[in-house]
Amino acid sequence: MLEHFFSPNAVAIVGAARETGKVGHDVLKNLITCGYEGKVYPVNPKADTILGIKTYPSLREISDTVDLAVIVLPAPHVLAVVDECHAKGIDSIIVISAGFKESGIEGAARERELLRKIKQYSIRMVGPNCLGLIDTKSALNVSFAADMPAPGNIAFISQSGALCTSVLDWAVQECIGFSKFISMGNKTDIDEADLMQVVGNDDQTKVVLGYLEGVRNGTVFMHTAREITKKKPMIIVKSGGTVAGAKAASSHTGTLAGAENAFDAACKQAGILRAKKVEELFDYARIFSHQPLPKGPRIAIITNAGGPGIIAADAVERSKLEMATFSKNTLDILRSSLPAMSNVYNPVDVLGDAKADRYQFAIEKVIEDLNVDMALIILTPQAMTEIEKTAEVIGDISNRTGKPIVTSFMGGKRIEASLKIMCKRKVPNYSFPERAISAVEAMYQYTLWQKKPIPEIKKIPVQKEKVVSVFEKARQAGRQSLGEDEAKQVISVYGFRIPKSVLASSETEAAQAAGEIGYPVVAKISSPDILHKSDFGGVRVGIKNEAEIRSFFCDITQKARRLVPSAEIKGILVQQMITGGKEVILGMSRDPQFGPLLMFGLGGIYIEVLKDVTFRIVPIGVSEAEEMVREIRSFPLLTGVRGEKPADMHALTDSILRLSQLVTDFPEIMEMDINPLMVFPAGEGAMAIDARITISQAGVNYNQKGTQQ
Amino acid sequence: MLEHFFSPNAVAIVGAARETGKVGHDVLKNLITCGYEGKVYPVNPKADTILGIKTYPSLREISDTVDLAVIVLPAPHVLAVVDECHAKGIDSIIVISAGFKESGIEGAARERELLRKIKQYSIRMVGPNCLGLIDTKSALNVSFAADMPAPGNIAFISQSGALCTSVLDWAVQECIGFSKFISMGNKTDIDEADLMQVVGNDDQTKVVLGYLEGVRNGTVFMHTAREITKKKPMIIVKSGGTVAGAKAASSHTGTLAGAENAFDAACKQAGILRAKKVEELFDYARIFSHQPLPKGPRIAIITNAGGPGIIAADAVERSKLEMATFSKNTLDILRSSLPAMSNVYNPVDVLGDAKADRYQFAIEKVIEDLNVDMALIILTPQAMTEIEKTAEVIGDISNRTGKPIVTSFMGGKRIEASLKIMCKRKVPNYSFPERAISAVEAMYQYTLWQKKPIPEIKKIPVQKEKVVSVFEKARQAGRQSLGEDEAKQVISVYGFRIPKSVLASSETEAAQAAGEIGYPVVAKISSPDILHKSDFGGVRVGIKNEAEIRSFFCDITQKARRLVPSAEIKGILVQQMITGGKEVILGMSRDPQFGPLLMFGLGGIYIEVLKDVTFRIVPIGVSEAEEMVREIRSFPLLTGVRGEKPADMHALTDSILRLSQLVTDFPEIMEMDINPLMVFPAGEGAMAIDARITISQAGVNYNQKGTQQ
Repeated sequence: MLEHFFSPNAVAIVGAARETGKVGHDVLKNLITCGYEGKVYPVNPKADTILGIKTYPSLREISDTVDLAVIVLPAPHVLAVVDECHAKGIDSIIVISAGFKESGIEGAARERELLRKIKQYSIRMVGPNCLGLIDTKSALNVSFAADMPAPGNIAFISQSGALCTSVLDWAVQECIGFSKFISMGNKTDIDEADLMQVVGNDDQTKVVLGYLEGVRNGTVFMHTAREITKKKPMIIVKSGGTVAGAKAASSHTGTLAGAENAFDAACKQAGILRAKKVEELFDYARIFSHQPLPKGPRIAIITNAGGPGIIAADAVERSKLEMATFSKNTLDILRSSLPAMSNVYNPVDVLGDAKADRYQFAIEKVIEDLNVDMALIILTPQAMTEIEKTAEVIGDISNRTGKPIVTSFMGGKRIEASLKIMCKRKVPNYSFPERAISAVEAMYQYTLWQKKPIPEIKKIPVQKEKVVSVFEKARQAGRQSLGEDEAKQVISVYGFRIPKSVLASSETEAAQAAGEIGYPVVAKISSPDILHKSDFGGVRVGIKNEAEIRSFFCDITQKARRLVPSAEIKGILVQQMITGGKEVILGMSRDPQFGPLLMFGLGGIYIEVLKDVTFRIVPIGVSEAEEMVREIRSFPLLTGVRGEKPADMHALTDSILRLSQLVTDFPEIMEMDINPLMVFPAGEGAMAIDARITISQAGVNYNQKGTQQ
Repeated sequence: MLEHFFSPNAVAIVGAARETGKVGHDVLKNLITCGYEGKVYPVNPKADTILGIKTYPSLREISDTVDLAVIVLPAPHVLAVVDECHAKGIDSIIVISAGFKESGIEGAARERELLRKIKQYSIRMVGPNCLGLIDTKSALNVSFAADMPAPGNIAFISQSGALCTSVLDWAVQECIGFSKFISMGNKTDIDEADLMQVVGNDDQTKVVLGYLEGVRNGTVFMHTAREITKKKPMIIVKSGGTVAGAKAASSHTGTLAGAENAFDAACKQAGILRAKKVEELFDYARIFSHQPLPKGPRIAIITNAGGPGIIAADAVERSKLEMATFSKNTLDILRSSLPAMSNVYNPVDVLGDAKADRYQFAIEKVIEDLNVDMALIILTPQAMTEIEKTAEVIGDISNRTGKPIVTSFMGGKRIEASLKIMCKRKVPNYSFPERAISAVEAMYQYTLWQKKPIPEIKKIPVQKEKVVSVFEKARQAGRQSLGEDEAKQVISVYGFRIPKSVLASSETEAAQAAGEIGYPVVAKISSPDILHKSDFGGVRVGIKNEAEIRSFFCDITQKARRLVPSAEIKGILVQQMITGGKEVILGMSRDPQFGPLLMFGLGGIYIEVLKDVTFRIVPIGVSEAEEMVREIRSFPLLTGVRGEKPADMHALTDSILRLSQLVTDFPEIMEMDINPLMVFPAGEGAMAIDARITISQAGVNYNQKGTQQ
């Protein structure tokens, strides 16, 4: 798949240049100096040879087959070259040239034409507006990067070419090796999901890193990520999330940055580790690249200094890791051989005068303990400290044990040499203990994801045609907002219980309905044109008798006619009054990148003031619905505080799953709320008191449309 | 103050040793090789000269005056030397030797004796169990550190000697200079507050850094910090925070308070920047040390790469800073001279081919803009980038402008030389934009603190003797927990309104009281032995008539006698029923280091489930009380959401201030809750519905006792 991009037998550089410093020169030079063993064809009508290689006036003149064309010509010339590529039978191109979507209206038109052409010709394309790519296995460097990274097991996919140059430069210093290194540019054809699939299936790649400013197709992205993350870790930094960032994004590669909540939910659901900062991306990459996964959360800390040991223990306390408790045997051994002043409990303090042998003894004994899943070794450069020798010792142990070991050698000049040793021995060092803990925590979290069963999406049998007919009726009436009664019809098809209610179009009907339902009742104005009934004053709870219901009917219908003369007033909805449950909100809105996004939270101020809500991308399985419920801060309120009975969790998660299925089944639902869903005590179920649904204008399948760009 | 420690005319090293690698050797060597110009007297009975310097068998044999004695002998010999120091008239000693409190029972006893002796002799002491100290102005290095730091304007005070060695080593690499560098050891005599005072008044010191594991006297610490932070920034990392001693607490406040909350409150109130990680400590130190303070929050970003620009803009959005909006003039100038593809809006993208001159042009124009308070310059090493020249250019501009400039040159080997240039030019570089933003944000926050007026503590006139008599009565009865009626008496002396209430000791009295107060009433069991009345079922609200009050009286008193036979049952408290306000909790518990800690939060689940509370150390001023109210997440509930009236903020802050004064006036109050305080709509005041107070056993002034160690 896409193999011509990564292991071509012959590469043409269209726009190869003689002049040092020109991109067309640098790309060719990288290609021929980094060890690539295939054929190289520079194309430039004004040169016979470049860098000593025969140069062709055009692609046509090359007699052999060409697998990959790299185009570095000014943007206006690119389209014609694509025609030539097609004529030459080339199916893979990298367009490095800028001057497309990112550069304004003219460029955007050029990019659309470029896309049209390659689709027509069945050519696959990386770019335009990118740095190019590197594959260390085939020693292919078709980029204008200034450095060739060492071979390694990290794949890096970046939406920013400039970040690539920084990362490469930094990697050389930090002994980080890469398997594949890809600058995606404008992602006009090949996007992050395509490349994730490539590196996901690549044996050379153990860790997948990404820098994204947005994703092109949320559904495909999640699907691809889910497959990869069960096999190998995937760590992503996404920027352009906040308002100011998003503004910068649209002026950069023209990417539409999606809501942070949607991307967060996608990462959670697809097992992606989302790094908060670029620094974290590489802090995590180093440990995943070099160390085995831990079997559990129990960490041992070994230090030659009390203070940094406390700092590390604090960081553990704040993390999802646990401080390991050593076995009696380990404690006895440590106690018998370490100096009397040492602390043998975790964190183990081998004291400031510890030489390499004492470190070695302590680390070996501790790492053998069955209660220890991983270790952090801290070293401060004291007078007696054998810095490099200790690094060697740690390298040896790390090599033997199956447990992850990280270090925090703290210092500057004096530890420089030891850092090189640990680089070579594949022991990741972090200049401060807090960062080391954060890195091992990421590993532990990843193991939890790996163990997690894939959520099973169960389909509840429903009579979908009933929903179809409600939607059709609304559309025929030219309405996108369903009335409360219609919305409730829809959700009751999906198994939501709703209060007994009768639509009364006259005062007398209202009184009769209330009598049948039984007082007290709730009454609400019924009009598809009045969405926020409460704010309008159109809801009255606790109506106790016939006089009250009659007077409410008259008052509210008059008020509505007066204030919203254009509104269609259907009458009032007389409803059974429901009490004794916990009010929650279930809702859905549509993210432009990821599609339907479910929301759950406790009703009222918990949502409005505390914004205590959680999101998932549909469809979701049982375990994900349960996670949503547990994730909100106010979750304990559902379990019963202050002597209250716990809420019916089963009914709640079941409701979330039914909503997930509804919005999956009907992509024309643009937005909806079930607010409140009243969740009764355990065993007593739940009931949807009110609901609101907005559908798309025509019978458009928004889902399909929404995922195109 | 303590000047003999930092600029002594003559120093004796007691325990100076001939052998390289011994601490007694290293200290002497540091002293004579780092440029110190005073007299040096090694003391060692077994040597005539060490390192070529005449050595004395004992302090007695030195004929001249000695200002400072540094003791590096094994612990058992230290006490005798202290006697000699006294005899010799030495008033300042540094005890480097370990083997005291940190080493067990015997060492602790030795440390107590050491303290007793120096108090008796009026000797001041740093240590024991420390690395020693360094003063770069007097070129005094009486430590066994392996490095002498460059002179600079940062003072570092550390509770961990090992961390000192790491920091020194790191500082050499990062071109960080220090004014004073002090390892405090066990802080037996001289502690953080003493040293803060020294560096606070030191002209050489512009920035104060500290690593603490605890503070010895919270009140003195805060007082000292407040004085320093108005003049210079103080940045502290405190570890050992999460290790929580779960002590039994009888109040909500006691349960929620903890060492971390107290230290956080102290930092807030004293203007200390609390770094979350050691790395942050130095990230902040570098900018405070080298750059001027910003006049406002508006930052400009200039970058040669879109992606990192977005990353930085995201970080700004998450911070307290703002993205600057350039003037039309600036935009016009940038547009007229930068290439057409550049982004002239913030973040300014000078494009990947920008050389130093283009950077210079953009930075100069942007930094001159009156709407810009500071700038971050991002550089990725592209092919055309003039890395070192750009560093020089930035150094020049930074030198001329009065606005802070930081950089994020992103890369490894290729940017190494430029980092050295910026080090020298005092432009702090951060390897990733997020850290740069966090550092400038810290500066901006510090300017806010500097502008903040010192809170004025107003005293409300009260009849304290009435409170004294309530406490005395309780003590005479052998009680530490006051009854509800007693607690309410106390708070009403301090101006809290309380509901009308009558203690009824019989059914008839209860009925009569309720009649006088007016139905509905609330009734509560009154017993000093039943603290959690609600949990006991001892509270009934909404009693509507005589029959109900009579039956509650009988039921509850019987229940109490049955379940808690030993309890003293005073009867029931019949109380005016109060509705229509917002329930908040005010409370106080006592922190062992900082003394009385005030708590505020919304009542009920906001405290119990969401733990949405805030703390301050007493006494506090009006502005601090207002901050407390605004700081909680659920604050919007007090301003009136969903059409409710806003709560009476004035009454609320006034209540907090009254509580602050009460617990300040009466150090024997160990813990108290006012729960709930009912806050009525604006203008209608507040009322304390229930209160609970626990006092100390005897008339002990806990405050004085509590601050001793």
